[in-house]
Amino acid sequence: MSSVLVVGSVALDTIETPHGKATEVLGGSATHFSLAAACFAPVRLVGVVGKDFPKDHVEMLRARKIDLAGLEIGDGKTFRWHGRFLGDMSRAETLSVHLNVFESFNPRVPASFAATPFVLLGNSSPLTQKSVLDQLRDPTFVLLDTMDFWIHSQRKALLELLPRVDAICVNFEEAKQMAEATTGAQAVRRLLGLGLKTIVMKRGEHGATLATKDFQFTIPAYPTERFVDPTGAGDSFAGGMLGYLAENGFEAASLRRALIYGSVMGSFTVEEFGTKRLQGVTRDEVESRASSLMKMITV
Amino acid sequence: MSSVLVVGSVALDTIETPHGKATEVLGGSATHFSLAAACFAPVRLVGVVGKDFPKDHVEMLRARKIDLAGLEIGDGKTFRWHGRFLGDMSRAETLSVHLNVFESFNPRVPASFAATPFVLLGNSSPLTQKSVLDQLRDPTFVLLDTMDFWIHSQRKALLELLPRVDAICVNFEEAKQMAEATTGAQAVRRLLGLGLKTIVMKRGEHGATLATKDFQFTIPAYPTERFVDPTGAGDSFAGGMLGYLAENGFEAASLRRALIYGSVMGSFTVEEFGTKRLQGVTRDEVESRASSLMKMITV
Repeated sequence: MSSVLVVGSVALDTIETPHGKATEVLGGSATHFSLAAACFAPVRLVGVVGKDFPKDHVEMLRARKIDLAGLEIGDGKTFRWHGRFLGDMSRAETLSVHLNVFESFNPRVPASFAATPFVLLGNSSPLTQKSVLDQLRDPTFVLLDTMDFWIHSQRKALLELLPRVDAICVNFEEAKQMAEATTGAQAVRRLLGLGLKTIVMKRGEHGATLATKDFQFTIPAYPTERFVDPTGAGDSFAGGMLGYLAENGFEAASLRRALIYGSVMGSFTVEEFGTKRLQGVTRDEVESRASSLMKMITV
Repeated sequence: MSSVLVVGSVALDTIETPHGKATEVLGGSATHFSLAAACFAPVRLVGVVGKDFPKDHVEMLRARKIDLAGLEIGDGKTFRWHGRFLGDMSRAETLSVHLNVFESFNPRVPASFAATPFVLLGNSSPLTQKSVLDQLRDPTFVLLDTMDFWIHSQRKALLELLPRVDAICVNFEEAKQMAEATTGAQAVRRLLGLGLKTIVMKRGEHGATLATKDFQFTIPAYPTERFVDPTGAGDSFAGGMLGYLAENGFEAASLRRALIYGSVMGSFTVEEFGTKRLQGVTRDEVESRASSLMKMITV
């Protein structure tokens, strides 16, 4: 079994949704990703927190065999985000954001992590993602996550990274924005034309699509009725995918299955605020949902 | 091979989309449905047009073996609709609507059509749909189509029809409105709880889901890049489904395949204004797209 490396944020989130409010709960892309991936394979985390970061969280992550050798303790406070989701919760409204130690975060991949085969470049500026790419030694599969902010503000730098990674993970609207396309089909063709090998296109409640030059594969979302907080669903999705690939090896068939496991991990995350549901997930629960999704695409 | 009966509208549509404008082209739910279903099985149409309805359209429909014994020629003008689609074309803006002979349309199913096994109750008031149901003799499979207007204005009458039909065909938002649900998963459970046997939930560019108490089945949309005019896509979807069922018999496996053929027929309709693309479709083209969709859900 291979390991997975994630470079991303660790945060304390205050989240309001129609289902309630959670104050200063554990969040951040690297956190959600790590907890999801750790269901399948050993995880190595590169990130930064402040001196105020609760020891309980560190212990919880360590207990799940997440290697924190790359977690810097910066001189200042931990990244804090306060957001609100209304209506169908398809969009977050940011009420406040304090980057704190994350503002000057310049990720350093420890020498012992540099040869990790499966890597997530968590959502951050394309320049930061490039600097991480430059520190890696022959990775098998690098997945880049991004968001509309970088697509709009640094589109050129972002597009230049596409031929250097193995896949990107974006939602449907972001894929269209990135490709300046009017349909998802057009976005897929254009992004593959820019030298990208694989697109993971998340469709929220409608599922997800994996697209390469050779094939497309689409799955539904696991139909959970308990939709409490979408925060971290995308990171958990990426974590499930890369964790599954690290456990099972990278080839076309396992890539398709990885999409299913990614979707399953996202479906758990949304059922509680923060990382609460993800922390308690068992492999049996994961397999049960993966099996349900498989049945939903069996003719 | 069985026959398919459709009761619905026949119209002359003027349509504006970002791709251009089409003036007084053949439209209406029964028209799109019939042309799609006729790729698979003999079709019987019940509808009404005015004395101004072009003879060319009648001949074109007859040439496709659509039985027009139930097409009334009313005393007045044909139903006309003028609509506009903007942006991503997810919603039609009605610029004008002249119901004309359709306003007082009280569908009479000819005696020779009453025992047709596969039936589409096209989008109209639940009371009209009920009167058609009362005229049918032991149908094998009745599919009810409806829209947000009836869900909001006659929800109770509509819900009362659910246990009397075999399936409903609605889009994702309509399913949530009908069930007063916040998620698609909740909508599905609630609608099945009201005595409905099967839900066909269309997700537009994201595909479609078939749900019964026993299983769910989800497919992607065929990824056409030529998205010119969405008018009639839903009716073509229903026509493809019922046509395929009439050709292949009704059982769980053929129902799943019927969803694929429905989606394929909808994907052709959107490629040109009105019925233009649908009129020219060959069975080989249909099978080619169905095969592509099958591959897209093969793990």
